[in-house]
Amino acid sequence: MKILSLEEIKKRIDLQKIISMQEEGFKAYSNGEVIVPPVGHMHFDDPQADYHIKYGYIKGDELFVVKMGGIFYENMIRFNLPNLQAVMLVIDIKTGKLHYLLNDEGYLTNMRTSIAGLIAAKYLGPKQVGAIGILGTGNQARMQLSLLKDYTSCCKVYLWGRNLESAKQCKDDMVQDGFDVVIAETPKIVAQNCNLIVTTTSAEKPLLMANDIQPGTHITAMGADRPGKQELDPYIFFKADRCITDSKSQCIEHGDSHHAIKNGCISEVDLIELGEVIAKPELGRSNEQQITIADLTGVAIQDIQIAKSIISM
Amino acid sequence: MKILSLEEIKKRIDLQKIISMQEEGFKAYSNGEVIVPPVGHMHFDDPQADYHIKYGYIKGDELFVVKMGGIFYENMIRFNLPNLQAVMLVIDIKTGKLHYLLNDEGYLTNMRTSIAGLIAAKYLGPKQVGAIGILGTGNQARMQLSLLKDYTSCCKVYLWGRNLESAKQCKDDMVQDGFDVVIAETPKIVAQNCNLIVTTTSAEKPLLMANDIQPGTHITAMGADRPGKQELDPYIFFKADRCITDSKSQCIEHGDSHHAIKNGCISEVDLIELGEVIAKPELGRSNEQQITIADLTGVAIQDIQIAKSIISM
Repeated sequence: MKILSLEEIKKRIDLQKIISMQEEGFKAYSNGEVIVPPVGHMHFDDPQADYHIKYGYIKGDELFVVKMGGIFYENMIRFNLPNLQAVMLVIDIKTGKLHYLLNDEGYLTNMRTSIAGLIAAKYLGPKQVGAIGILGTGNQARMQLSLLKDYTSCCKVYLWGRNLESAKQCKDDMVQDGFDVVIAETPKIVAQNCNLIVTTTSAEKPLLMANDIQPGTHITAMGADRPGKQELDPYIFFKADRCITDSKSQCIEHGDSHHAIKNGCISEVDLIELGEVIAKPELGRSNEQQITIADLTGVAIQDIQIAKSIISM
Repeated sequence: MKILSLEEIKKRIDLQKIISMQEEGFKAYSNGEVIVPPVGHMHFDDPQADYHIKYGYIKGDELFVVKMGGIFYENMIRFNLPNLQAVMLVIDIKTGKLHYLLNDEGYLTNMRTSIAGLIAAKYLGPKQVGAIGILGTGNQARMQLSLLKDYTSCCKVYLWGRNLESAKQCKDDMVQDGFDVVIAETPKIVAQNCNLIVTTTSAEKPLLMANDIQPGTHITAMGADRPGKQELDPYIFFKADRCITDSKSQCIEHGDSHHAIKNGCISEVDLIELGEVIAKPELGRSNEQQITIADLTGVAIQDIQIAKSIISM
C-alpha cells in the first residue's frame, strides 16, 4: 500500500493527461459503462458539515475508487483549515487490496471540478471570448479561471462576489495569475459584459437573470451541488439553445436544471450529458449566437478518473 | 495522519477493553444513540466479490469511522490471500481530517464479529456448558471458539463442516488452541451433543433442525449476513424462549430471523436486541432449560467501537 501526500500528488499532476482521462470518464459514464452506487451521506450539526462517500468503477477496470470527503463549513473560521476535506482510496477490484491512499486534502476534488468547467468551455464555449465572468470568490472561482487559460487567451475578467473584501482578495490572486480583473457591483454587470461565465457560489436564489444574458454566451454553473442551491434564473434554460449536464439523473434531482424543469422552462428530454457531447461534439454549440449552459453537480466518475491519472504517473 | 499496520494493530489489542467497548456500542445502538446510514454495496463478477462500506458514529463522539471491506470469494484459491479484505478510517467529526488509517486487512472485522459471539454467550449462554458445537471450518469458526475461553472452561468441541479436509485442518488448529475436538458427521450430531452452538457457515438452507436442539441450548448464528443465507430451521425460533438480534431492522431484512418471520414462527415484536439485553440482563436467559438464539448480521457500530479501542490504546 502506498500513501501519497498532497505534495507528492502535486508533483504527479500532468494536466493534459488528466483532462483527457476526465473526458474519457464522462464518455464512459454517459455510455452506461460506469458503476456508481448511490452516494453515502452524513450531516453533522456542530460544527455544520456535509460528508459524502462517492465510489465506483468503469466496467472492465482493475481498480475501483472510494472518495470520502465533505465540506466542513466552519473549518476556516474556527480551525484555519480548508473547508473542503477529502481523501481517495484506490482498491484492487480482483482482490480487495488497498493499493493507494491519496491524502490530497480535497485538492483532487477541487481540480476535477475545475477541469469539468474547462471541458464544458471547450465543447460549448464561444470561439471568441470577449470577457470571462466569474461569480463567487472561493477556491473554485480561482481554479476555474486559471484553468480556462487552456481554452482561451482572453485575460479580461469581471468578478462578482457577495462580500467585497473577499472579492478584493480574489481579484489580487487572479491578477497574480495573469488576468486583468474588474470587480463587478452586480451579477447583472457580469452578464452584460461577458460571453463566458462560470458561477461558483453557494447561492440559494438566482444570481443571473435570463434578460441579461447576451447572445453567444456560455454559462458553466457549478454551485448547485445539493438540493436547495440555485444560481441561474430558470428562464435562462428556456432561452438557451443547449442545456448540458454532467449527470442527467443528478441534475434533475438537485442541479439548476431541477429548478428549470420544476418551473416548466425545459423538460427532462431537453437535457444532454457532457459525455454525449464529448463523444459527438456536434451535439454542442453549432453557431456563435447560441446560448449554452453546463450544469455541473459532480459525479464519482470524475474522482475515479483523477485518482487513476495520479497513480498511473 | 497515522497509519497502523496489522502488526501494530495486533500489539494494541486489549481484549477486555475491546469487549467492554463493544458492549457499550451495542447498548448505544439499541438506545438510538448511533447514526449509521445505509450500507454502501458493490458486487463484482469476475472474480466474485461483495464489497461493503459501513460508516457512522455515536452522537456526541469526536470521531466517525468508515469501514470499507468485502469478501473476495476466490482470493485464497487464486491469489493465496485472505478472502476478507478491509480497512478502517478514523476521521475527525469537527474538521473532516483523517486521523488514522487502520490497515488491518480484515482482522478487526473478524475480531469484532467473534466478540459479538462471545458477548451473546455471556448474556444468553447456559451456566454449565457440556460441549461446544461449531458449524463451519473457516476463520470465524476458529476465532469464535478461541474467544469462548473467556466465557467457559469447557474444552469439549463437536465440529462440523461441509468439507472433511477443511474440517480436519480446522480441528488441528483448534486442538493446538487447547480444545478437545470431535469431527461430527452431521449438524444433527452437533445439536444432540452440545448446549452452546455457534454457526459460521455460508449455508443457504437450514443446517440445524428444531427437533434436534436440546433444552438449555444457546445458538449464536452469524453466517446469515446477507439475503439468501440461512443456517437455522425457522422452527427453532418458534421453540426458542429468547430470540436476540444485533440489529432488529437488519435481521428482519436478511438474518435467520427473516426466515423465521416469513414462515410465521415468530413475529417482529418477539425480537430483542443484544444492546437491550446488555442494558437489562434480565431480558436474557432466566433459567437453564431455556433455548436462546442470537442472530448476528454485523452492524457498523461494531466497527466504530473496535476502531476506537485500537486508537485509544
